[in-house]
This record gives sequence, C-alpha cells and structure tokens, in this order.
Amino acid sequence: MDRRKFLKSGALGGAAVAAVPLAAPAYAQGKRTLTLVTSWGRGLAGVHDAADRAANSITEMSDGSLTIDLKAAGELVGAFEVFDAVTSGQADMYHAADYYFVGQHPGYAFFTSVPFGMTAQELVNWYYQDGGHDLHDELGQIFGLKSFIAGNTGAQAGGWFRKEINGPEDFNGLKFRMPGLGGKALGKLGASVQNVPGAEVYQQLASGGLDGTEWIGPWADEKAGFQEITKTYYTAGFHEPGAALSLATNREVFESLSPAHKKIIEIAAGEGHQWNLSQFLANNGAALQRLQASGVKVLSFPDSVWDAFGAASNEVLEESMGDELFKKIYDSVMASMRSSSGWLKQSSTAYVSQRDRVMG
Amino acid sequence: MDRRKFLKSGALGGAAVAAVPLAAPAYAQGKRTLTLVTSWGRGLAGVHDAADRAANSITEMSDGSLTIDLKAAGELVGAFEVFDAVTSGQADMYHAADYYFVGQHPGYAFFTSVPFGMTAQELVNWYYQDGGHDLHDELGQIFGLKSFIAGNTGAQAGGWFRKEINGPEDFNGLKFRMPGLGGKALGKLGASVQNVPGAEVYQQLASGGLDGTEWIGPWADEKAGFQEITKTYYTAGFHEPGAALSLATNREVFESLSPAHKKIIEIAAGEGHQWNLSQFLANNGAALQRLQASGVKVLSFPDSVWDAFGAASNEVLEESMGDELFKKIYDSVMASMRSSSGWLKQSSTAYVSQRDRVMG
Repeated sequence: MDRRKFLKSGALGGAAVAAVPLAAPAYAQGKRTLTLVTSWGRGLAGVHDAADRAANSITEMSDGSLTIDLKAAGELVGAFEVFDAVTSGQADMYHAADYYFVGQHPGYAFFTSVPFGMTAQELVNWYYQDGGHDLHDELGQIFGLKSFIAGNTGAQAGGWFRKEINGPEDFNGLKFRMPGLGGKALGKLGASVQNVPGAEVYQQLASGGLDGTEWIGPWADEKAGFQEITKTYYTAGFHEPGAALSLATNREVFESLSPAHKKIIEIAAGEGHQWNLSQFLANNGAALQRLQASGVKVLSFPDSVWDAFGAASNEVLEESMGDELFKKIYDSVMASMRSSSGWLKQSSTAYVSQRDRVMG
Repeated sequence: MDRRKFLKSGALGGAAVAAVPLAAPAYAQGKRTLTLVTSWGRGLAGVHDAADRAANSITEMSDGSLTIDLKAAGELVGAFEVFDAVTSGQADMYHAADYYFVGQHPGYAFFTSVPFGMTAQELVNWYYQDGGHDLHDELGQIFGLKSFIAGNTGAQAGGWFRKEINGPEDFNGLKFRMPGLGGKALGKLGASVQNVPGAEVYQQLASGGLDGTEWIGPWADEKAGFQEITKTYYTAGFHEPGAALSLATNREVFESLSPAHKKIIEIAAGEGHQWNLSQFLANNGAALQRLQASGVKVLSFPDSVWDAFGAASNEVLEESMGDELFKKIYDSVMASMRSSSGWLKQSSTAYVSQRDRVMG
C-alpha cells in the first residue's frame, strides 16, 4: 500500500481512526453516545417528534455507533437553557427553535423565521442553495456550534385571543405570548409580550397570565388544548411564515466525529426538516375542521392589522441592522426570497389557482 | 450476556451479522457495492444531480461499507431500460421518474406527477403522512422493488413551442414531447405525442422531429438549450405540478442489507428529495430572467386551454380506473390533496398574498 493510499484509507477509515484526541470525549470501542437536549416537552406534538426522528435516524443509520440520548425539556436542562448547555459542553446537541436565542445573537432569528420573512419552501431554497447554511455556520463559529435545520412547522397561525381583533389598537395592553422578532413587533403595537416556554403556555392562558397566544397551527394547537380556554382563532399570521427548528452540535464534539458520522447528522437533520414539515401540513387541515366543528370561530386579520404588522416588523428589523452579521443575513434572505418567490408564484401558485378554477 | 441481549445485539450488530444468504450477493468483508443505473445523462441539470447526491450520501454515511456505483443513462443500460435492469437483477438500483414506467403499471404515474395532481409539497404530505409511501411499496411488491422518492423538479413549465397557443385547437397535429398521463391528455386534444428520452429532445426539436416540448423548468430548460431553437415559452403547465424522482432498489437486494444500510438508503432518498427541489426552485427564477433578457417570450396558457387540459386529464385518469390499485392510489391522492391544500391556502398562500400587498 503506498503512502497516498494509506492516508486516504486513514481519512475515510471510520470511527476508530477518525477519533482525534480533543477535549471532546473520544470514541470508546468505536462507539459514541451524544446527549441531545431539547426545548420541547415529550408531549408537544410535532416539535418533539422532529427531535425524536433526527435522534432515531442518526442512531439507526450509524447502527448504534453514534447513539443519540434525547433529554426533553426539564429532563436535564430547561427549555431555554439548551443553548448554554451545548455551548458550555454540558450537553452535546440541542434541538430547538433558534429564535429563542436572539439574546445570544439577533441573527438567530432568521434560522427559525422572521416577521414577513420566508415561507418554509423559500427558507429551504435559501438554506441549501443561496448561502443560508453557510451563514448558519458563521453564527455557529461565534458560539462553538455546528447547526443544521431539522424541522419546520410551516406557516404559523395568528393565534388564540379572548376577544376579536378588529384593528391594530386592539393589541394595546394585550398580554400575548409570541417569541422572537414577531413579539418585538407586537410590542410596537402596545402589546405586553411574554416569552413563555411551550410547556407553560396553557396554564398561563387559563389563569389569565396571558390574554392570548400564538403557538403553532391547528394540529399542535388542538393538542395543546387552547380551544378549551377560548374559541377565537386567527389563521395566517405575520410572525412565523415558515418556522424552522435546528439541530445544533457542540462544534468541538462535531469536529471530533468521523466523516461518516458528520454526514449522518447532516443528512438526518435535512430529512427531518422535510418529514416534520409534512407532518404539520398534513395534520393541520383535518385539525382545523375538528376545531371548527367544536365551535371555534376561525378568522383572518383585517388588512388594517396586516398593515400595522408590516410597519412594526420593518421597524423591528431596522433596529437590528447595526449588527453587521444580522444585516448580512438579512440581505442574503431578501435576495433569495425575491428570486425564488417570483418563480413559485408563476409556477405552483399559478397552477393551484387554475386547478381550483378548472376542477372546483 | 443473556439471550435477549444477544438476539438484540445480533439484530442490530452491523453488516456482517445482518447479511442473510439470499440470491442477492452477500457482504464481502462487511462491504457492499450496489450499481445504480439512472435515466439521466451526466449533463442533465438537476435530475442527474439528485441521483448523484443520493449515491454520495449513501456512500459517505456508510463510510464506504455501502458504496453506490452510479451509471448514467447509456453507460450500462438505456434511459428507459433501468426498470427492467433492476427488476431482473442486472443492476441493483435505479434513479428515474417513475411515470416512465406506466407501461409496467399505470399506478406509477402518481409517484412522479399526474395532470391536475399534487404540488411538490402536497406530494410530500401524502407520501410521508397520508399513505403514499405504503402505496409505493405495494406497487414495488408486484415488481420486486423497494422505492423511495428522491428528487423533485417542482411545478414544471408548460414548455417550448414553435408557435403561440391561443386555443385548444392549436394542439391538433402538434408533434409534442410529453411523457406520462399528461402526454395522453394532449393526445386527446389531437397532438401527436412523443416520449423522447431527455438526452435526445434537443436534437429532435432542432431537426423538426418535434414541434415543441416540455422539459422541466427555466433552469434545466436553459441548460438544455431549447431557447436556441425557439423563443416561445409557457410557464405553468397542467401536466406535472410537482414531479418526483424515485430511487428504487431491487427488493431482494434491499432485504439482504443490514438495518443500518436500509435506513441510510431511506433517509438519503428523503433528504435528496428536499435538496433537489430547492435546487430547481432556487435556480428557476434567475434562469427565467436570463431567458427573457435573451429574447424568449414568456406566456401563460389562456383559460380556454386550461379548461381543455382539465377535460382531457379527467378523461385519461378515468380510463385507468378499471385497475383496482390505480383507483386505490388515485383515491388516496385526492383525499390527501383536498385536506392538505385547504390549510396551505389558508396559511402560506394567504400569507404570501398579504406579504406582497403590504411589502410590495
């Protein structure tokens, strides 16, 4: 065997060879277990499922040589503590919505969803083809993370309200749960915005700590049981038109993995994104019908409210433009969105409109 | 080690243990090479890339223990011979558009796209959540295949014409390339429909063997060079609103693989579907602008033509309803499409429409 062949075989030669003696734990007998902490309780429809699917895919594809040990919110650390747990090395990976971490860096908002931003498909186009993943990586280098999108709720619903919203003034003084930049925009309309972890939202809404909440969409919202508390539900919202979830690995841990294990994490995350989006979308239609049958009133925000959402969202995005990386990501998102949304309108949207007209 | 532990370890214990002595070639020293034949020339943008990505993902995730040897169209068998090559065992896998094989079974049409059928997202919802994959498997059991969707072109363009289409009568006598049930529908309008392999379409159009052709969409069409022959281009078409590509493995070969290798093929295919769809969608917008800048006239079919497409498509679908499995798949597709398209309209389509109105 010549030297070049030997080196090549070494580089590709699997777990035992690739395990470099870093601070991160090395492979023991070619096997490795990584602890995955999530922002989701085990009962949370869709979001926990996305984490679970990615974990199982990785474990199964690696034949257990890379086993993922999933700890749901509260089992090791709290829902919003997963970022610090992974950057500090207390856990190896997290599964969460990255906009929970805008306090760490405002740019993380774009890797879940920003107000008036991309739909799930536009986000996928940006992430894989127009530089989105590289920018996720640039953020990850700051904090010592290696991140991939690994789930998506689709366009989120406007949410649950104790009273109807007839104009932007109805948000004044409203105690409303909405994370991320959407929440900041509602604050501009005078709402008292609360960032309550998923597991606590029902209780807060029931006890009057919240006047209203967005959560995800009909299917997950129905499982959360908000219809037991109020019957007023708004469909399309401005705040999360295609909310992605992320699987982030401590960067030192990731770098210590074999090339095969790195690829397994990447591909499992990507497949999980698609699968999870289909899970939300396939279930939402039927759930909305059930909610309506049970007496929930389904409404759309009037144009005056959408206009106010738009002005407030622009203001909020503008406030973060002082951060160079935030602006770089924003510009990248807008360029990709303009390009890919144009074709989507001329192709699938035009098609569906003709299909509805012709086939009824 | 107790017996249960031993059995469990045997079942999950990797390649060497899981290789069952079937007719399919067993693992040699824990390694296996599968030959993948495709319907695509190596130069065909997007479709070849989808096959290539799946092949590379499988090889890399398995650390070469399952190496995929890709043979493009013509390298081992012809573009349309891949189905027979894999069912007969001449090759191990194919990557193709399953509607090429409606001659083998009409039900295969649904696993690419049918006229007035599902968009790419609706298809994903159906495939992963509403029984689509199980039905793909039911077809596969007839022919000895294990299939997964593994690519998608998005909604395809209406195509290239030597003259403008002002009414359905303009299809009368037109020599047009369109595979699958869409082609049969055009036949109802009097077109002389040709099922020409991708690699030969340019030559046929240039020589007058074809009066027109659909291919995929702006990006792939531009690479194919059809704008050098004619300048009349229609955007949204009725025939393939979200054309999936499939990765199919000889079923006996698939069953002889370890659980980890089976999972690797499944997840690589799914991730490839999402990645490939983003590739087409992200590239189509910019390509359409370039085509227009180079003098291509971009048109939409008038409503009278869409109405004729609708009537002809219904007629064609009706003709296959005598086949029980075809009807079963059709019913499953329609039920899922109705359910998931309703929510998509109320969520992302409603959102994009407000985004366009508010943000301009």
